Amino acid sequence: MTIEILSIGSELLSGQTVNSNAALIGRVLLEAGYRVTRIVALPDELDPLTQEMKQAVRRASLVIVTGGLGPTQDDQTRKVIATLANQPLETDQPTARALKKRYGDREGILRYQADIPKGAKMMPNHLGTATGFAIELEKSLLIALPGVPAEMELMLKQEAMPLIAQRVKKQHKQKALFFCLRHEYQFDQALREMQKTSPQIEMGICPSYGVVSIYLKIQAASEPRAVQKLEEVGAKIEALFPTHFFSSQTPQIEIALQQELEKAGKMLTAVESCTGGRIAARITGLPGSSRVFDGGIVAYSNELKQSVLEVAQETLQQKGAVSRETVTEMVQGAFLHMHADYALATSGVAGPDGGTAEKPVGTIWVALGDRQQSKIYSHCLHLPAKMGRSNMMEYVTTYLLATLWRYLAHREQPFKDSQ
Amino acid sequence: MTIEILSIGSELLSGQTVNSNAALIGRVLLEAGYRVTRIVALPDELDPLTQEMKQAVRRASLVIVTGGLGPTQDDQTRKVIATLANQPLETDQPTARALKKRYGDREGILRYQADIPKGAKMMPNHLGTATGFAIELEKSLLIALPGVPAEMELMLKQEAMPLIAQRVKKQHKQKALFFCLRHEYQFDQALREMQKTSPQIEMGICPSYGVVSIYLKIQAASEPRAVQKLEEVGAKIEALFPTHFFSSQTPQIEIALQQELEKAGKMLTAVESCTGGRIAARITGLPGSSRVFDGGIVAYSNELKQSVLEVAQETLQQKGAVSRETVTEMVQGAFLHMHADYALATSGVAGPDGGTAEKPVGTIWVALGDRQQSKIYSHCLHLPAKMGRSNMMEYVTTYLLATLWRYLAHREQPFKDSQ
Repeated sequence: MTIEILSIGSELLSGQTVNSNAALIGRVLLEAGYRVTRIVALPDELDPLTQEMKQAVRRASLVIVTGGLGPTQDDQTRKVIATLANQPLETDQPTARALKKRYGDREGILRYQADIPKGAKMMPNHLGTATGFAIELEKSLLIALPGVPAEMELMLKQEAMPLIAQRVKKQHKQKALFFCLRHEYQFDQALREMQKTSPQIEMGICPSYGVVSIYLKIQAASEPRAVQKLEEVGAKIEALFPTHFFSSQTPQIEIALQQELEKAGKMLTAVESCTGGRIAARITGLPGSSRVFDGGIVAYSNELKQSVLEVAQETLQQKGAVSRETVTEMVQGAFLHMHADYALATSGVAGPDGGTAEKPVGTIWVALGDRQQSKIYSHCLHLPAKMGRSNMMEYVTTYLLATLWRYLAHREQPFKDSQ
Repeated sequence: MTIEILSIGSELLSGQTVNSNAALIGRVLLEAGYRVTRIVALPDELDPLTQEMKQAVRRASLVIVTGGLGPTQDDQTRKVIATLANQPLETDQPTARALKKRYGDREGILRYQADIPKGAKMMPNHLGTATGFAIELEKSLLIALPGVPAEMELMLKQEAMPLIAQRVKKQHKQKALFFCLRHEYQFDQALREMQKTSPQIEMGICPSYGVVSIYLKIQAASEPRAVQKLEEVGAKIEALFPTHFFSSQTPQIEIALQQELEKAGKMLTAVESCTGGRIAARITGLPGSSRVFDGGIVAYSNELKQSVLEVAQETLQQKGAVSRETVTEMVQGAFLHMHADYALATSGVAGPDGGTAEKPVGTIWVALGDRQQSKIYSHCLHLPAKMGRSNMMEYVTTYLLATLWRYLAHREQPFKDSQ
């Protein structure tokens, strides 16, 4: 049994939009016990769309189509599906009236937004104008969702998932393991050996900046013994690096950190130069973050490091902004002005300009302060310039969040390799 | 002529990784005059990979494969391509020696990273271990790149693009137009009419939060008259909303804003509550941002709003943190402590919790301060709660960056619809 996603929109192929919709659908299905087997992105063009959709509904039990449902002339999805189903498009009158009431419609184009193939099940859009629908086609359940991410997500969860749960059999049981500050190659040997003794478990490994994700899967219909084996193998992998294993739910280290801070009743602040607000943005991205984060300072210029964080002028002149002394004083300044228990600080050369012979692009000083213990740990990262500005900023952010998490959850001394 | 991207990795299908590689390749090719016609994501599994690759090299002139080149057991790309090419895998000895020298290799697995099909052109990896390669297969040029984004990007630009330019004909001339704070439907009628009189131009429109992107394309081989027509139609679309049109190069409004600030020699700061550092992060994501941004404050808690930004306790008690008075005082506090010429402030309820009957989730106060004019403009956004926390935060960020850009570039009064 297979599940395919068809993402429609020329902007996906020109790279102006990253296909975050397909990733979200993949995650939601995975959590519900389903596994996407193929994702295809195609432009808003009649021929390739028709061909691909025709094949998809022959191959797959479930086909989820996103995009191309808008009111404008280059949106083809409704037409293509109606033609394949050999059904006319019909306007869902209550939806059309509701749209007109909510948005007005001087140009008369919004009513197309309520068109669905005859016999399809209508799915309302509570955030925007494009109505979705579900229809049986060949051996597939085909579900058409809008392309705007918030609209797609809500319709998927509220309308599509209940239908899918009724109609499509669950495929697998899964176990995920997320490790911070490890590399893919550090797991490989052990995974190879476990694979030999547990061939029924499918294993996958996925590295990203600062986090390694490992996935174990067995068939949904597996015997209890296989389920037990899945748990055993998971526990063995976890035991490889117990102080780096932070979650079996999410690769977001900030969630694990938020939990540790809440458990301890502690607050965090961030005083950021080269990460430019990314530590704050990652933490505040989480619901309830105000319980562990009351704010931070983006001290991008030397002037601000002096005026708001009281870094000494001599320090900046003699040691430079990118130095152990500066990040240490930034933490001291943070503790002076804010009530946080822990402070993270960054100052570095993220490039592409600003590097010198002594401090080339990729030289990043970081610090972690613990107010209660009166301790400030610091460390210098030397990242390859070719990594690029934005990757570097994201990596440093993850690195510091993970270092603090290991300090809180496992009392691992920060940056100890280098101290 | 068609160009296909094949993205390999189970993490793409499970949604743990968003396929940003395909988007980046799409952008790089588009700028070089090529157009991707199909993107497929598949898991690291022998059968589906072999089948898809076999079809791709029959259909397309250029096939770019990313991922599955790692040293671990679940990476299949090298094997599949070698089998299709009917060639053995051979170790590129200089690369294998260099890898061993750079990384050591106790487990002996790194040498697989230097394996490429016999007859393929080796592409070095300057950032990581996975060697890429290019090979002729059926009617295609097939290029295999690593999955780690920074490694992929560097190899694509340095190694693959020169090869592609030699081997693959350019397809189109393109014109893009980016508008801020407009909606898709506001363009549709006009685009339909232009399409009628200029059928040779392919038109596409792509909405995202706060920005609408419009793409016009003609064949690369078009006559000079068609090229002129492309420019004329572009100018007409631009003239629809001249004070919302901000770029024909990039949908990132922060780049346009940075340019306006630099031109005027002015500095910006951000004092953020509900956007939690996103304004700072967007601006500091740009190389050279220190010339226009010296920092900001993430004043997430009321306490920080008082202590660092000197918002009056009475204001917070009587009007609340989410109020015109609070964002106004946040701007005043910013001007007190920082030298910036302009300040952006946010305070709102991004949810999912924290809403009240009077101020439901989605109630967001924003302000824009102009120090020289001694003016502080403010406005209340009412966003739908169902939009979700992170979409809301990103939209408010774009909304404020765009409002300041329109104020600087076109003297458009901020938030004037509501003042």
